[in-house]
Amino acid sequence: MNTVYGFSPSGNCHKVKLLLEQLGQPYHWVEINSAVGETRTSDYLAKNPNGKVPMLETGDGRVLVESNAILYWLARGSACWPEDPWQQSQALSWMFFEQYSHEPYIAVARFIAGWTPMDSPRRADLPMLRQRGHAALKVMERHLASDVWFSGSAYGIADISLYAYTHVAPHGGIPLDAYPAIREWIARVEATPGFVPMALPDEHAAALIAQSS
Amino acid sequence: MNTVYGFSPSGNCHKVKLLLEQLGQPYHWVEINSAVGETRTSDYLAKNPNGKVPMLETGDGRVLVESNAILYWLARGSACWPEDPWQQSQALSWMFFEQYSHEPYIAVARFIAGWTPMDSPRRADLPMLRQRGHAALKVMERHLASDVWFSGSAYGIADISLYAYTHVAPHGGIPLDAYPAIREWIARVEATPGFVPMALPDEHAAALIAQSS
Repeated sequence: MNTVYGFSPSGNCHKVKLLLEQLGQPYHWVEINSAVGETRTSDYLAKNPNGKVPMLETGDGRVLVESNAILYWLARGSACWPEDPWQQSQALSWMFFEQYSHEPYIAVARFIAGWTPMDSPRRADLPMLRQRGHAALKVMERHLASDVWFSGSAYGIADISLYAYTHVAPHGGIPLDAYPAIREWIARVEATPGFVPMALPDEHAAALIAQSS
Repeated sequence: MNTVYGFSPSGNCHKVKLLLEQLGQPYHWVEINSAVGETRTSDYLAKNPNGKVPMLETGDGRVLVESNAILYWLARGSACWPEDPWQQSQALSWMFFEQYSHEPYIAVARFIAGWTPMDSPRRADLPMLRQRGHAALKVMERHLASDVWFSGSAYGIADISLYAYTHVAPHGGIPLDAYPAIREWIARVEATPGFVPMALPDEHAAALIAQSS
């Protein structure tokens, strides 16, 4: 059985949980709080030298890191990975977009808002992060003017990847009011069979988020 | 025939050229200077709303963006994409690492050094970018202690992806002296059949790089 090392309020980690639940694959979940350095212990770094979650460990002890690569590994042969190679390439294109043009702004703004103190110097970055987060959302909104999903003709791992931080963008001070197509797509994702919601931020993080907007 | 829109001194663009040359596939190359805004024209944005290079356009007018997704599309069925699904997943893992933990530091330090004026406020970011660039190189060096390639048991698209900016890391003030395994791997990549080097920075960029180290 697979073991997933993950931090429950992390979108990158929720990607893996959501896919495993929707595929009906059993797994162990080991909670690792990356916000307090649990990915930087020598034991953890021995398995993942890059010191990040999520990490997948197979029953025979092999390790795979990077959330979107884990999605690929788990989804092959299922309806969540398109059969057509061009659609596969487009799904991967959106997943690279997610990691380069979306997550570093939308997820990082949320992390700073909820998981750093109100006097953190990193909060000076929030206006820039929010501006670039909106730029990413505009690219997504435009795609959804002509397409229902990001993974080709059906729901799949590019949707799971982009859902992770898009639906909690408001936590980082990036509201979704100007993006009706994104809000409808979020509702479609949440209506897929076997959908499980992401863990809410704990009370401490929620209080910081409320003060940050 | 495929058309590639790219900026020759860009590592992300060289990835696509290198693979096409090694696969022996003919292509048109359209030079787009992203450093002077040529990816922000209305014509370009109509094809790629995210306004980046490289972009692949097929003979029948379909468009694919994101360098690493283009590599996947072109490499399927060739020796540059492993047959084994676990090795495929590990190759993708390194390609996501490249876009999240490597390129934003090593490529961006190089861009700031060579393609922004000496009084650019962005130069204040260089020490942080160089520190994180070295962190990425340490992860690569450690992998190469036990493995010859990043794409599984043979050279492939994860090597092409990581080669792009690693071999020019010194342009951004990130020397490779402390990474003997990386230097040997670079030599192996450059010895693969059909290898073509990346375009050198022009004289103006080269002068700025020389002043920046």
